[in-house]
Amino acid sequence: MYFASDNWAGAHPAIAESLVREATGYAAAYGTSDLDRRIEQRFNDIFERDVQVFFVGTGTAANSLSLAAVGRPGGVTFCHSEAHVVADECGAPEFLTSATRLYPVEGSAGKMNPDNLKAAIGRFPPGAVHQGRPMAVTMTQATEMGTVYSLDEIAVIGDIAKGARVPLHMDGARFANALVALDCTPAEMTWKRGVDILSFGGTKNGCWCAEAIVVMNPDLAADLPFLRKRSAQLFSKTRFISAQLEAYFEGDLWLELARTANSAADRLRSALASSNTSRIAWNTSSNEVFAVLDKAVAKKAEAEGARFYDWPVPAETPDMLGDNEVLVRLVTSFATTQADVDQFIDLLR
Amino acid sequence: MYFASDNWAGAHPAIAESLVREATGYAAAYGTSDLDRRIEQRFNDIFERDVQVFFVGTGTAANSLSLAAVGRPGGVTFCHSEAHVVADECGAPEFLTSATRLYPVEGSAGKMNPDNLKAAIGRFPPGAVHQGRPMAVTMTQATEMGTVYSLDEIAVIGDIAKGARVPLHMDGARFANALVALDCTPAEMTWKRGVDILSFGGTKNGCWCAEAIVVMNPDLAADLPFLRKRSAQLFSKTRFISAQLEAYFEGDLWLELARTANSAADRLRSALASSNTSRIAWNTSSNEVFAVLDKAVAKKAEAEGARFYDWPVPAETPDMLGDNEVLVRLVTSFATTQADVDQFIDLLR
Amino acid sequence: MYFASDNWAGAHPAIAESLVREATGYAAAYGTSDLDRRIEQRFNDIFERDVQVFFVGTGTAANSLSLAAVGRPGGVTFCHSEAHVVADECGAPEFLTSATRLYPVEGSAGKMNPDNLKAAIGRFPPGAVHQGRPMAVTMTQATEMGTVYSLDEIAVIGDIAKGARVPLHMDGARFANALVALDCTPAEMTWKRGVDILSFGGTKNGCWCAEAIVVMNPDLAADLPFLRKRSAQLFSKTRFISAQLEAYFEGDLWLELARTANSAADRLRSALASSNTSRIAWNTSSNEVFAVLDKAVAKKAEAEGARFYDWPVPAETPDMLGDNEVLVRLVTSFATTQADVDQFIDLLR
Amino acid sequence: MYFASDNWAGAHPAIAESLVREATGYAAAYGTSDLDRRIEQRFNDIFERDVQVFFVGTGTAANSLSLAAVGRPGGVTFCHSEAHVVADECGAPEFLTSATRLYPVEGSAGKMNPDNLKAAIGRFPPGAVHQGRPMAVTMTQATEMGTVYSLDEIAVIGDIAKGARVPLHMDGARFANALVALDCTPAEMTWKRGVDILSFGGTKNGCWCAEAIVVMNPDLAADLPFLRKRSAQLFSKTRFISAQLEAYFEGDLWLELARTANSAADRLRSALASSNTSRIAWNTSSNEVFAVLDKAVAKKAEAEGARFYDWPVPAETPDMLGDNEVLVRLVTSFATTQADVDQFIDLLR
Repeated sequence: MYFASDNWAGAHPAIAESLVREATGYAAAYGTSDLDRRIEQRFNDIFERDVQVFFVGTGTAANSLSLAAVGRPGGVTFCHSEAHVVADECGAPEFLTSATRLYPVEGSAGKMNPDNLKAAIGRFPPGAVHQGRPMAVTMTQATEMGTVYSLDEIAVIGDIAKGARVPLHMDGARFANALVALDCTPAEMTWKRGVDILSFGGTKNGCWCAEAIVVMNPDLAADLPFLRKRSAQLFSKTRFISAQLEAYFEGDLWLELARTANSAADRLRSALASSNTSRIAWNTSSNEVFAVLDKAVAKKAEAEGARFYDWPVPAETPDMLGDNEVLVRLVTSFATTQADVDQFIDLLR
Repeated sequence: MYFASDNWAGAHPAIAESLVREATGYAAAYGTSDLDRRIEQRFNDIFERDVQVFFVGTGTAANSLSLAAVGRPGGVTFCHSEAHVVADECGAPEFLTSATRLYPVEGSAGKMNPDNLKAAIGRFPPGAVHQGRPMAVTMTQATEMGTVYSLDEIAVIGDIAKGARVPLHMDGARFANALVALDCTPAEMTWKRGVDILSFGGTKNGCWCAEAIVVMNPDLAADLPFLRKRSAQLFSKTRFISAQLEAYFEGDLWLELARTANSAADRLRSALASSNTSRIAWNTSSNEVFAVLDKAVAKKAEAEGARFYDWPVPAETPDMLGDNEVLVRLVTSFATTQADVDQFIDLLR
Repeated sequence: MYFASDNWAGAHPAIAESLVREATGYAAAYGTSDLDRRIEQRFNDIFERDVQVFFVGTGTAANSLSLAAVGRPGGVTFCHSEAHVVADECGAPEFLTSATRLYPVEGSAGKMNPDNLKAAIGRFPPGAVHQGRPMAVTMTQATEMGTVYSLDEIAVIGDIAKGARVPLHMDGARFANALVALDCTPAEMTWKRGVDILSFGGTKNGCWCAEAIVVMNPDLAADLPFLRKRSAQLFSKTRFISAQLEAYFEGDLWLELARTANSAADRLRSALASSNTSRIAWNTSSNEVFAVLDKAVAKKAEAEGARFYDWPVPAETPDMLGDNEVLVRLVTSFATTQADVDQFIDLLR
Repeated sequence: MYFASDNWAGAHPAIAESLVREATGYAAAYGTSDLDRRIEQRFNDIFERDVQVFFVGTGTAANSLSLAAVGRPGGVTFCHSEAHVVADECGAPEFLTSATRLYPVEGSAGKMNPDNLKAAIGRFPPGAVHQGRPMAVTMTQATEMGTVYSLDEIAVIGDIAKGARVPLHMDGARFANALVALDCTPAEMTWKRGVDILSFGGTKNGCWCAEAIVVMNPDLAADLPFLRKRSAQLFSKTRFISAQLEAYFEGDLWLELARTANSAADRLRSALASSNTSRIAWNTSSNEVFAVLDKAVAKKAEAEGARFYDWPVPAETPDMLGDNEVLVRLVTSFATTQADVDQFIDLLR
């Protein structure tokens, strides 16, 4: 009953085995091996266009270097007020971009409200050197609150970014989970809706360590080879990432893993909907479930071995908890079994 | 006959298998799992003292964040003029330390000359704000030229650093190769000779991706958790590094792998010493061999499948090559077989 | 009728003349002249303790380097959501501190609400590497909204900073205006209420260009000589700042100039209070007045040569304007004459 | 007898008086006043083309922001090994460019040797991500050793920069002294010889504090408004710089001041040439003279009130001093009188 985070799971066996298979033999280093090239080509297929791919070691690196790629002095980056980039990355985006300011945009359900975004950008008239200048918009898909922007919602954000002449970045740490939730193609969820640059996350969905910056707009890729190396994110044995991704993409394993995680979350959501001790805190459609539990129930679950984190009550719904209630986050993963979920559900009764 | 670099090899089977073994189950993320703790303890044993260990993704990160840990505004870092930090890391040490200046110190055989080092430090009198101030000394062991500082030579550098009140960092991308070349303990090669902070490299010696900052002097570790996260080097599933290191250290596999690499280099050295077409360019004692080859021989070897890089003639020996000669670097690794070496040697006859 | 900003005025004649007087002769450069030393001593007298003083060229530099002096990787700085540091300095504080994050704290009348500040700091539990860690609190005195923190209010902020073990910085771009408004001593408004480091502004109050970082807590000054030089803020002919400050402090000219500015603002405030076409937008006590004007009146005033900026309606009072009204900022300065004010007041009738 | 540095002098009376004259009245802030515009136009006239001008506070800022304007991640800047940017600016160029590396190029007499420069650039083949990539060449005119690049020598450097597709920056802290030494026009010494961006120094030549970045190539100016503000170098009362430059340029005062300084240096040079106790260390043609003095003579001169700095013996001429000799630097300025020089010369007899 490990629902603390999808990064508590290890790696899918097929992915670990791929690392055994590729361990022998020699290959050119620093992203120039045949395997690296093959995986890059695979990204072209998946995104239905020529993209440029840069492997990096962490989601934080993918986000920060994506923003650095579009960086400019005095640049301001717009993000949701609770986005991972601003809340959980210890200033890495600011540091690795040589100090972009992250401008928090409010919005319910973890999504930037388009009107707020427009108003925020509007605070930076052209040429206003004191305030700085818009540099990028970054959105998280799936969001930190477990919700998923619809294709139309992405397009609205994309249009605002385009109107402001700044690129749109998508933090896809849980890209696959969002994708299967929307049941659409990667192209539809990205460049067809205005996304210019993507942090493509594999780690939370069954890899050991496989993140990539996917650049849809080739103009934005020019500095990335240098930005990546200068930020110490160019691995020598890059095929250890390629090897993971080879298995990840093989037979659409990645989508299957995301479906497994999302289904486990669905099962949790259903159980909570019919529980008389607990309830869904808000609707989510990815592999994160936020639940209001009776404190005694939560305590019992933990005593029985369930692992999850308490979660702060969102500012937008300050009164959501009753006296004896607690808000918790439950994250499922590729490794979550039906048995894990059912055992947990039993405890909620 | 792959002698291009030790990072062209993959991973040792035992290390790849360890990743399969640890792939299942759940573990706390971000360096807090039981396995992480166990490996940290292993470092204490290996270094015969309580050290602090920070896993990172690349040698460049280990070097840069080691220097950042001891960073100060206006700080100057002294290194050999051809050290990896200054010649091959695209400015990462400068960038990740918020702009230390790397001050090149000349010295033959890839080693800083102690007198030059003292003179260089002496150019920065205390309080001289225009020049900046000494911040660190960094040495590479084994060096970029395949040589190895003797224990006494390390101690001399250590004393100079101590006299200047700056910490001594060791870039140990090939730490194990140097260690078995000197046949000493890790403690003897580091803190017992004045090393305060170490980049401990596993990748070139049979891991996929396993580098660690080892802090001997605990005062220098205070900021590292934040420095590492802020530089996007804190992996979520850290046990993918721990799992590699578990196998790496098990039964002293790491020393065995380094001995394999060094022995293959010895065999190359011997063959070159008795060759009538080729010769050793300078003495080395790690897994790098620099050879002067007849151009025709070099060409033939490449045609037969040998892989190696041409190397620039060192400034200190400008006339080392005859008209039809070329200087090449031959790097052996844990994966180099006796047959590889013998096949290559045959080509030199 | 120049009310656009206090930096539209030039310099007080006594200050300009001082530059003529000191122009001849020779003096050691880079802050080491006798005059520099004398002015530093003057700061000790003014603040009733040994302080360390660093001249810099702009208020932005004073703020940014004050924060850099207390900087730490992953550091978060708490400021009012509309503070100059976050709203008007183009990311200089972030850039010159190597990427501190500025955490906006809401509060009415331009002052951080103490409960909000405590809650904001509380979001950063010790050791939480993902969020980053508190690094400083910075408050603006007088505030961007023309208000002035009372001595008790400063003490409350000071206690919160102390409780969180972070230093308290005061942005005193309008330090003198606040001081005469409170009718207290510099010591009472700073270190006696918990301020550790101060941006002391002279430029807006009659100097050409004279800003200083005043460090109350000597521990915080150690890196500043290097930080200042590394940020290109160490002037060679520092006595051009000292000479201005010599005249500025002579016979308490600085307080007289601030009283002149504040009195002019008082006169404006009184006139607005009794106007039937216009009104005070909110109470202020420094040299900034915010007024709600009838649009026709505003237009007429501008046509008659009055200069002032429109001001955005604060989020806390979204409905403050009637249909034909506009919010404007009126800033007085040492150079504002009674005649200027009266001419403007006439237009409001 | 103040020969310590040209920044020990104050300001020329005409320049100080200009600050008195402009002190009254109001003017738009932040570089937008009529006077600012007028001075910018004056630069167009002086350089015989439309240039873009950015006032900053220090020569270090002018140099650092010039390089930042042409900055790129992983960028390497080539400069003389003893250039001010690398030897005397505490890492400001590195810091304010987000970590360019300064690559030292040797050359006698303080000038980059063209062959060395070409060889240095040649170490960075296109696409070589590990080494980084060429970003700029910066030359100092007049040099730190008091010499002046001839127009042909500038053109040679300019051609090398152009061939390498990197911009050429000129550090003109002593621009006027070089200009009158060469007896040419500003255009001839800059863009007509390949200079793209210039640090135009006024401070050492009679201003209090007046430095400007002059951009010859408008493409390089796009980011500078933001770079300058972000580095805290945008003054509010910019007319305090414009007012200085107004007087500086009026009636070619600037050239007259430089001629005064250079003539005083000529007088020193002549006297040293005919002295029997002392001699010229190497030929210079600007306002810096390097002299080999008998130690007793040097001591006596200091006792009589002469001020100058000892200077390190250049690496290229290690044996230049006899046993009882010392190398000193003598800097003249706009304020140096014939009497000062003659009094000093008397001491050398």
